[in-house]
Amino acid sequence: MEDRIQIKVRGYHLDLYGHVNNTRYLEFLEEARWTIKEKYFDFPKTHDEGFGIVVVNTNINYRNYAELGDMLEIRTHLLKIGNKSAVFRHEIYLADSGKLIADADVTFVIVDRHSGKAIEIKDDWRLKLERLKQ
Amino acid sequence: MEDRIQIKVRGYHLDLYGHVNNTRYLEFLEEARWTIKEKYFDFPKTHDEGFGIVVVNTNINYRNYAELGDMLEIRTHLLKIGNKSAVFRHEIYLADSGKLIADADVTFVIVDRHSGKAIEIKDDWRLKLERLKQ
Amino acid sequence: MEDRIQIKVRGYHLDLYGHVNNTRYLEFLEEARWTIKEKYFDFPKTHDEGFGIVVVNTNINYRNYAELGDMLEIRTHLLKIGNKSAVFRHEIYLADSGKLIADADVTFVIVDRHSGKAIEIKDDWRLKLERLKQ
Amino acid sequence: MEDRIQIKVRGYHLDLYGHVNNTRYLEFLEEARWTIKEKYFDFPKTHDEGFGIVVVNTNINYRNYAELGDMLEIRTHLLKIGNKSAVFRHEIYLADSGKLIADADVTFVIVDRHSGKAIEIKDDWRLKLERLKQ
Repeated sequence: MEDRIQIKVRGYHLDLYGHVNNTRYLEFLEEARWTIKEKYFDFPKTHDEGFGIVVVNTNINYRNYAELGDMLEIRTHLLKIGNKSAVFRHEIYLADSGKLIADADVTFVIVDRHSGKAIEIKDDWRLKLERLKQ
Repeated sequence: MEDRIQIKVRGYHLDLYGHVNNTRYLEFLEEARWTIKEKYFDFPKTHDEGFGIVVVNTNINYRNYAELGDMLEIRTHLLKIGNKSAVFRHEIYLADSGKLIADADVTFVIVDRHSGKAIEIKDDWRLKLERLKQ
Repeated sequence: MEDRIQIKVRGYHLDLYGHVNNTRYLEFLEEARWTIKEKYFDFPKTHDEGFGIVVVNTNINYRNYAELGDMLEIRTHLLKIGNKSAVFRHEIYLADSGKLIADADVTFVIVDRHSGKAIEIKDDWRLKLERLKQ
Repeated sequence: MEDRIQIKVRGYHLDLYGHVNNTRYLEFLEEARWTIKEKYFDFPKTHDEGFGIVVVNTNINYRNYAELGDMLEIRTHLLKIGNKSAVFRHEIYLADSGKLIADADVTFVIVDRHSGKAIEIKDDWRLKLERLKQ
């Protein structure tokens, strides 16, 4: 089941062209993932216990411009899950028209911050991640 | 009547101390003002007509730290209004405990972007701003 | 010939783990491209004439952490050039040890802002871009 | 003796008006202070030892616009020093014309992160800070 959040485009998101700046979209994707970390993975408690979701690759397509006052809807689901890494697919739409603004595949690992190493994604982590399959 | 918005503290808002970064609070205040611009001043239409609210001074006190997962409430009211400038008072609280995190006085002018000059704050602008008095 | 810039890691670049935040690297890549736009493509004059370099895809690998006080070197060269799009390869290293921190392929088009359309990359644009081949 | 750094205005610093965004200036001031922390106070070593310079108030005047390609010079000196707090004055100029863009007084304390408390500014800290008097 995909997760959805909405973000309204403000003046400070824009660049000199009046469009949402490329870099800012990555923050919108981070916001989507923090929402998921909170709803599905009990953050910040899980963070305090020493686990983090660490991004190893982001591959983002910028497809259309978004402008001042646009309401964006960011839809996120789990695209793939492997032994030690998994991939979220994020899609950013204009909430009213459904026009696609950007999409991104974000590959991540679960890191045990005590060891500094990626852990195997199993048991509880895997069960919870799989709930985010489309 | 003051205006209120809420923002949840995420990992990308934090600095190396695990506290919301000083600079980020200014974005939270911008978010509060964009909400007001939209609700009270018909932005982005008013922006397209060539008017902008331009900040000339920000005076912010950082009073306590905010951390991952905190829900912040930003309360904004009109503190003063003069002939050509006015002042918003923003207060940032932890939403649940009511602890004060930061407060700021933000002095602004209304700029007619065609002339590039600050206009006198009268008529409709003044009436609407005065609705934001505490 | 690749282009190189250096950026020192500061406290406000870091996230709660004490590492440079993922999103911030995209700004470092933007800084690298703005340097190139200035040195090779006569920006901001070219911007004022109505042309912009617009990113359509960013594919970034985060390979190692960078920390407070690290001097980063961002090396950029032209990886590919097609009819209407081209690709910069950026590599971010620790300047002293040469350790690879991140690398990214950034696909872009040249947009004529009057028409809003991507132009064919030929003549002067192509000659200048090809100087950035490795 | 004041300290000076230069920063070139890039596209990602700008807002929808084509001017450097208000919030971004605070990052420029942070950059100025990190340079000082490194040059005068042996950061990041001092950070690792558990000391931080923590801002408690920023009072910034936005006086003129800065635009794409402008070279900014940020000049910083120590304005005042008390028992437990001190004030930096930052001035941001266009490097070539000397036009004043913004100025800010930034009040800070030295925090011992082990106790979480502001320390008295004496001995070495005071001597070093006083070198930054104008």
